Amino acid sequence: MADRIQVGILGATGMVGQQFISFLQGHPWFEIAWLAASDRSAGKPYAEATTWRLDGEMPGNVSGLVVHESKPVPGAPKLVFSAMDASVATEIEQAFAAAGHIVVSNSRNHRMEPDVPLLVPEINPDHLKILPLQRKSRGWPGAIVTNPNCSTVVLTMALAPLKPFGIEKVLVTTMQAISGSGYPGHSAFDMTANVYPFIRNEEPKMESEPQKILGGCSGEGFTAHPMKVSAACNRVEVLDGHTETISIEFREKPSEADLLEAFRSFRGLPQERGLPSAPPHPVIYMTQPDRPQPRRDVNRENGMAVFVGRLRECPVLHWKFLAMGHNTVRGAAGAAVLNAELLSSEGLL
Amino acid sequence: MADRIQVGILGATGMVGQQFISFLQGHPWFEIAWLAASDRSAGKPYAEATTWRLDGEMPGNVSGLVVHESKPVPGAPKLVFSAMDASVATEIEQAFAAAGHIVVSNSRNHRMEPDVPLLVPEINPDHLKILPLQRKSRGWPGAIVTNPNCSTVVLTMALAPLKPFGIEKVLVTTMQAISGSGYPGHSAFDMTANVYPFIRNEEPKMESEPQKILGGCSGEGFTAHPMKVSAACNRVEVLDGHTETISIEFREKPSEADLLEAFRSFRGLPQERGLPSAPPHPVIYMTQPDRPQPRRDVNRENGMAVFVGRLRECPVLHWKFLAMGHNTVRGAAGAAVLNAELLSSEGLL
Amino acid sequence: MADRIQVGILGATGMVGQQFISFLQGHPWFEIAWLAASDRSAGKPYAEATTWRLDGEMPGNVSGLVVHESKPVPGAPKLVFSAMDASVATEIEQAFAAAGHIVVSNSRNHRMEPDVPLLVPEINPDHLKILPLQRKSRGWPGAIVTNPNCSTVVLTMALAPLKPFGIEKVLVTTMQAISGSGYPGHSAFDMTANVYPFIRNEEPKMESEPQKILGGCSGEGFTAHPMKVSAACNRVEVLDGHTETISIEFREKPSEADLLEAFRSFRGLPQERGLPSAPPHPVIYMTQPDRPQPRRDVNRENGMAVFVGRLRECPVLHWKFLAMGHNTVRGAAGAAVLNAELLSSEGLL
Amino acid sequence: MADRIQVGILGATGMVGQQFISFLQGHPWFEIAWLAASDRSAGKPYAEATTWRLDGEMPGNVSGLVVHESKPVPGAPKLVFSAMDASVATEIEQAFAAAGHIVVSNSRNHRMEPDVPLLVPEINPDHLKILPLQRKSRGWPGAIVTNPNCSTVVLTMALAPLKPFGIEKVLVTTMQAISGSGYPGHSAFDMTANVYPFIRNEEPKMESEPQKILGGCSGEGFTAHPMKVSAACNRVEVLDGHTETISIEFREKPSEADLLEAFRSFRGLPQERGLPSAPPHPVIYMTQPDRPQPRRDVNRENGMAVFVGRLRECPVLHWKFLAMGHNTVRGAAGAAVLNAELLSSEGLL
Repeated sequence: MADRIQVGILGATGMVGQQFISFLQGHPWFEIAWLAASDRSAGKPYAEATTWRLDGEMPGNVSGLVVHESKPVPGAPKLVFSAMDASVATEIEQAFAAAGHIVVSNSRNHRMEPDVPLLVPEINPDHLKILPLQRKSRGWPGAIVTNPNCSTVVLTMALAPLKPFGIEKVLVTTMQAISGSGYPGHSAFDMTANVYPFIRNEEPKMESEPQKILGGCSGEGFTAHPMKVSAACNRVEVLDGHTETISIEFREKPSEADLLEAFRSFRGLPQERGLPSAPPHPVIYMTQPDRPQPRRDVNRENGMAVFVGRLRECPVLHWKFLAMGHNTVRGAAGAAVLNAELLSSEGLL
Repeated sequence: MADRIQVGILGATGMVGQQFISFLQGHPWFEIAWLAASDRSAGKPYAEATTWRLDGEMPGNVSGLVVHESKPVPGAPKLVFSAMDASVATEIEQAFAAAGHIVVSNSRNHRMEPDVPLLVPEINPDHLKILPLQRKSRGWPGAIVTNPNCSTVVLTMALAPLKPFGIEKVLVTTMQAISGSGYPGHSAFDMTANVYPFIRNEEPKMESEPQKILGGCSGEGFTAHPMKVSAACNRVEVLDGHTETISIEFREKPSEADLLEAFRSFRGLPQERGLPSAPPHPVIYMTQPDRPQPRRDVNRENGMAVFVGRLRECPVLHWKFLAMGHNTVRGAAGAAVLNAELLSSEGLL
Repeated sequence: MADRIQVGILGATGMVGQQFISFLQGHPWFEIAWLAASDRSAGKPYAEATTWRLDGEMPGNVSGLVVHESKPVPGAPKLVFSAMDASVATEIEQAFAAAGHIVVSNSRNHRMEPDVPLLVPEINPDHLKILPLQRKSRGWPGAIVTNPNCSTVVLTMALAPLKPFGIEKVLVTTMQAISGSGYPGHSAFDMTANVYPFIRNEEPKMESEPQKILGGCSGEGFTAHPMKVSAACNRVEVLDGHTETISIEFREKPSEADLLEAFRSFRGLPQERGLPSAPPHPVIYMTQPDRPQPRRDVNRENGMAVFVGRLRECPVLHWKFLAMGHNTVRGAAGAAVLNAELLSSEGLL
Repeated sequence: MADRIQVGILGATGMVGQQFISFLQGHPWFEIAWLAASDRSAGKPYAEATTWRLDGEMPGNVSGLVVHESKPVPGAPKLVFSAMDASVATEIEQAFAAAGHIVVSNSRNHRMEPDVPLLVPEINPDHLKILPLQRKSRGWPGAIVTNPNCSTVVLTMALAPLKPFGIEKVLVTTMQAISGSGYPGHSAFDMTANVYPFIRNEEPKMESEPQKILGGCSGEGFTAHPMKVSAACNRVEVLDGHTETISIEFREKPSEADLLEAFRSFRGLPQERGLPSAPPHPVIYMTQPDRPQPRRDVNRENGMAVFVGRLRECPVLHWKFLAMGHNTVRGAAGAAVLNAELLSSEGLL
């Protein structure tokens, strides 16, 4: 694996940074070569700077790496993943792009910028067409691309197969896993035997990001998809996997068979190109009446597929169904890595 | 308390039966005098026939009562609560009504019958007008009245204050407590760190009972409310308290202030008459951004109020908000007892 | 209730402070009149200074009280409960005692001091004999009394009835509730579907406090009980109630009947005097093979009794059994209030 | 993989049977060729006879196999794993052994028989010496070997490295995962936010099986290890992984360094021979103060290692520490498969 592409991780000591490290273990194209975090951690070996929060022990290939300051210095790889907290991501990501790096970010900061792609490779790989404009208007030799919020990924992956039927209205209620809130995240006192019915800033993201993702891109700008989305977001005591109940109204009501066929036949560029992290079937329809379930299905397909089920008529809109996907894999680290694979396959790295 | 009304409980050994016994402890009007269950239990003292599943120890006032067969025998009180399983309730409830008993049932069997009231005393006490027709057409000296399914009670209590604005469409997603499924009910293997996204027969109930409850009654029949309801029902690992996200479209969009005022000022006949189990405020709007929560709020007001919160605009329908209520109290035993109190205050016992 | 004794609470805004406020609702002897907390909160009404973390809403009788600085000022009641964090309790508690206040503390800071009683009123009310020495040696017109660590209370309450048989060795493993770690306390990520097998400083407390509590007091000092205690402490996902498996070796092996009789007949001064918070039976032996259980039994007896069960022979020591008690009531706020009731009944307030 | 050994599974449709199927996926030596279950299932394809309870979907290599009656018929493989319920295992296992099969059983029925090995390959592979006696006395061309109860495996794996120091007394408290009780097993109502402090028949097994496992075998019988074991068994809401607090007294107190070295250097025959399911390090000592934890560590080493930690002095016995292992892998299906690998490496298949 001597010619793997070296990658860096910004925000490497946090939970999302750890998820990047975990997801990249054994990656056939990318090799973690450079880690950065806050000044407090800089200069220390990763093992010393970090309390490993994920399962098992810290992977051996990062424990000895020295943590750098979050600055674009010589030696930093061209490709850097950003796992930084939103409070600091804007300036640092821009500094890296200005220094020529390709920043593949999981942070929310640049998602809705008019010259930054909000990328789901199965859905809108053509949004990369905006990069020349981004570079020109920002004067960056590098670039920033982003992936959506974790709950948005699950929703848009479930919606994408149905886009040809003309989606007009979407009502979604989420039951989101606690791993989405980082560490320490929620207090056990809030979550034990409880529903915590509020996630700050989550509903606005779910109500605006999908339109950009399912919308168009001309190279000179994005056109939002005209659908209306309403979200009610809740945290439940699940470890990994966001579950979403979804009701949809279409331009015209499609048949059940049409919808099922759309879910089952959905493929995208990552599947066509065989990108390493692409699941063979990005959307999997389960026929059991009580599935998908987060605990049982979240780790299938390496956490990269979205599972749907319980398609049935909606007495208010047209159809309703259930969707579930892995929030820290398909909804965060895995999403960003798939974005980087797409960039690589496009010759952009 | 020598002149309290004696009551019987059908299905007394099951979980719902135990909830009736628990809720009736210290009741100022009603005294448990007679218990019945399956033939297997008949003839034994309650303490011997029953494994007590609720918190603490079995109440002393029932442990020595002998369990009867589920037949209308001399000595059985006029008022009997039915906590029977749906698989046996139809015939037994009818036999008691035919023998002159007032059957206040929590079972689903007679809820949608055209001559049986589906009663929520704050909402439709006038539905008792159907009883003469029931008696006449069935030839019963007694009667059957029912309360709704647990998730329906929470929904309709939250909708009732808004009825004057002309409800047209309702989309609801539930996150329901495990106590709703009896004992043993769900396997711990299904519920631990999971969402179980299916509850058999629950969605059809939620999509049809509310129209009867919020509808009219002429004495000659019921008129269903014309609203459309769509429900997506899930089980989460909460002990007591069903949480529901609700989106509504009205004939015309009311203002936020109008809705808040409607929630806050809502009262019904039970409040007017001061029925013993009636909460002073049947619907309580909580202003904190993350409330109501089932674990923290479910036991307030003796479990008899429904809590709402998070009222905000819905980009698809008009308004959305959150509701939560105690599924085994307001949604089962407490609901039936309040029905019986209403009957008593009407002179029907 | 006009002549109730006014009490103050130090550390009133924290979780333990809130538990004091909650436990004192409707107390027949004590009335909350004065609250203190950190400088950051001082000067604000309690409702503004505090996010209420316990069930339901903040009690109305404290929401309007102004929070004071943690200093012994004129107007502060003679009796103050200390719910302060260990990091600040030492100096502040001493300042109050020096200013003439009776400080009834839940903090660990003074528990093991040679002139401070570590009080469990059913077990060692005679330890109050140390107070003259405390006052003399410290030069305090006031005094400090303490209650044990939450897991110690459960253990010592279960051991006290057996003391006459000559306890020599005690091995205890705890499964402790999350409410014991304050707010936010444990991360939900640590506790969900997990055992967290470490509680900082807990085992040393459990291995030293019981000997002081079950030991003697001459007025000139304490004599530790000679038993050896070994503890293994774990956090499990339970809301309230510490469960403990206990094995004991005695000077001579008593019979099962002797031990059962000892549990059942155990009473102390609080029961004799009918102190308001004293449970009629401080130790309750449950005969079911699977009890006590924290979720089902913790709130019985107002949370003030300790429940034991499963007494059986130990192949290594003599006997083993199970104990469970409410960690924030009997193990914290309720323990301190009972201490204050004892002081009051002794004429020490 | 054409020359893999064909294996059968008795009790294939139950939870333990499913765990065998799951664990054997991709096994380099063994190939599932034959499934049996109760008469009710016999004759149906496995996919039709079975509701798959484990994560994800039923493996494709078994879904089409026809389920047989639990009888030793021609065509059944020589090696059969028994995942049968204790209520039926005795006769069926004996019938298979009598018909010449090697029965590798996870059932408790024959564990304590004087001519049946209770095998943990790292600890007592020499117990296979009993097989000639078994065959002779029973008149079986085949044989039965067993693995211990799940909680016993974790305990004995943690004790085995310490055996050279002369173990005399062991006190253990378990916090066991719910997957150990099958499906549906425990009610969610019993486990949610609770400790269930009783597991039927579990303590007697833990107090007798270890002495056989750590004892000797002469070929003419077993000699029990003389240590005394006392167990207190509890169920907690963990999915997989039994956690155990252990205190030990030795003939003479060893040093901490000796014990740590013993844990770290422990290896057995499976490691020596490189059996496919043998973990490189069967016992792994974790140095973090709060580890092992079941949720985080249970799946490491393919679930086949036992993790220990928190070694510290015990004020009552000599030393205490923590152990944790996967109850359905190392404690059931994986244990049996490792037994079969040992038999195969001994030329006994």
